[in-house]
Amino acid sequence: MDIATTAEKLRAGDRRALARAITLVESTKAEDRATAQALLTKLGTDRAALRIGLSGTPGVGKSTFIEAFGKMLTGLGKRVAVLAVDPSSARSGGSILGDKTRMDLLSRDPNAFIRPSPSQSQLGGVARRTREAIALCEAAGFDVVLIETVGVGQSETAVAEMSDLFLLLLAPAGGDELQGVKRGIMETCDMILVNKADGDLRAQATRTCADYAGALRLLRKRPQDPDDFPKAVAVSALEDSGIAAAWDEMQALVNWRRDSGVWAQRRTDQARYWFHEEVRSGLLSRLTADPAIKAQLARLEEDVTAGKIRPAAAADALIASLFKP
Amino acid sequence: MDIATTAEKLRAGDRRALARAITLVESTKAEDRATAQALLTKLGTDRAALRIGLSGTPGVGKSTFIEAFGKMLTGLGKRVAVLAVDPSSARSGGSILGDKTRMDLLSRDPNAFIRPSPSQSQLGGVARRTREAIALCEAAGFDVVLIETVGVGQSETAVAEMSDLFLLLLAPAGGDELQGVKRGIMETCDMILVNKADGDLRAQATRTCADYAGALRLLRKRPQDPDDFPKAVAVSALEDSGIAAAWDEMQALVNWRRDSGVWAQRRTDQARYWFHEEVRSGLLSRLTADPAIKAQLARLEEDVTAGKIRPAAAADALIASLFKP
Repeated sequence: MDIATTAEKLRAGDRRALARAITLVESTKAEDRATAQALLTKLGTDRAALRIGLSGTPGVGKSTFIEAFGKMLTGLGKRVAVLAVDPSSARSGGSILGDKTRMDLLSRDPNAFIRPSPSQSQLGGVARRTREAIALCEAAGFDVVLIETVGVGQSETAVAEMSDLFLLLLAPAGGDELQGVKRGIMETCDMILVNKADGDLRAQATRTCADYAGALRLLRKRPQDPDDFPKAVAVSALEDSGIAAAWDEMQALVNWRRDSGVWAQRRTDQARYWFHEEVRSGLLSRLTADPAIKAQLARLEEDVTAGKIRPAAAADALIASLFKP
Repeated sequence: MDIATTAEKLRAGDRRALARAITLVESTKAEDRATAQALLTKLGTDRAALRIGLSGTPGVGKSTFIEAFGKMLTGLGKRVAVLAVDPSSARSGGSILGDKTRMDLLSRDPNAFIRPSPSQSQLGGVARRTREAIALCEAAGFDVVLIETVGVGQSETAVAEMSDLFLLLLAPAGGDELQGVKRGIMETCDMILVNKADGDLRAQATRTCADYAGALRLLRKRPQDPDDFPKAVAVSALEDSGIAAAWDEMQALVNWRRDSGVWAQRRTDQARYWFHEEVRSGLLSRLTADPAIKAQLARLEEDVTAGKIRPAAAADALIASLFKP
């Protein structure tokens, strides 16, 4: 790949160049990694999209929502990219691989770009590749990058840590089911969207909204947000209603945060978070990436399990041999 | 400290030498760490106690149980050591510090040794020190080492990973409360003891026992254990009843595992587990232990948060500079 040409095409908004670049950052080959880093450096960091994380379990109508939300945004002249983070996709073959065909209108929209999640099971790797894919979409001039996750394990935390706004999409529920939403995710999200506020479920969606709004207020006070946030908003992806109002709320929050400096601070905090995560995972991956270290680890493990050396002493010996004196 | 003399006294069962040696392994000073490692190497690994992990939340009568169980064991001619793992003890000042005075009979028993948990908040450090304290107790000829935890965060997993038998002490409960016991801990434990099977609670304890036994059977099949394990057994620490029967059950399980090779396999697996844990934590602690690395980390973090370099590129640069080429 010619880095200069790809960078030029990508910055001009060429979707094919973007797709190829994402394939490159998804590669685990050492030479591809080096090319990917060079491309990212070449592309710079001067463009920034609004990064919206969206979590929701299967069945809440996530792809229908993304289609409706995305079409609304492109209708406003925005360019929208949709990425997926799904550490379980090694099994399922990509969470929105099927959704792409279901997001029929959006996938044919010239101002939209939909990318299924790569078939990788390690969250660490998925997180790095997703952040790099976001950077590529930003360099390609997209205004909004939607990062969706099915909320398996730690993926919600990862997506929240790479989003400017983190949304939780839920279905109308009884009071008891409200308990089922993990406290951690309630504390992390910036807005709850209760979908399926249509037909027979309309009244229940409104009640669920009020329940969640109450729970959100009880859970926390957020000095960094306006008084009336975090909010719970009812939408219907099916009837395409409430979505424009939800977007208005998102913009109100984003503008408030931009003006107050919270926006920039959040990006700074996230950069620091990912730096430390990268250092941690990078250190640990050394153990398996380098054949000599791997072999030494295996030899020491043998001695440990044979009772010849204690675990701590063996670990000390290994680590001392790895680092520069 | 003279290592040879301490080792000799300790192997002769001297409790003062044991107490001093545990203080040594609890120290975080570099020179103490080196002395501790030398002492542990000198002591060898030829003696092995039965390591029993015991988890139970405050209020289930853990110290009363340990006193009754310990006294029963010393009555059988066994030497018993009691250690505590409590990552929260930095706040509380040691979970069984107060219990030691409450375990009045056991603490005055010449065949018992009770050691409160050190005031350390890092589980990694606590786990290493506890495993080293266990090794010291074994070298001192103790037959049974009881490792107790209040079950905060990851401490139960840590204690399970350093025990031959992992017991869960619970109070009599209604059917609903059964749900409150985390699935993970149910899957980890080898036996459930329902305490307070006395007075008004006797019938409820029996019912709770049956509930837990049913839940244990549903949760898993364990090809490595006899058909009728894991068991739930009712005991009364207060009335000192059921404890000898529980000990019989433990011995049956231990003998079965010894004969089938499961016992040795578990110790081998645990040694491997702790080796990898030590390597992981040792690698990460390098980042903060070495002033030069710490400074480099801080410089790169500054560049990352200022947007001068991407997190992944900064992490790669740091890691490349740390390792031997």
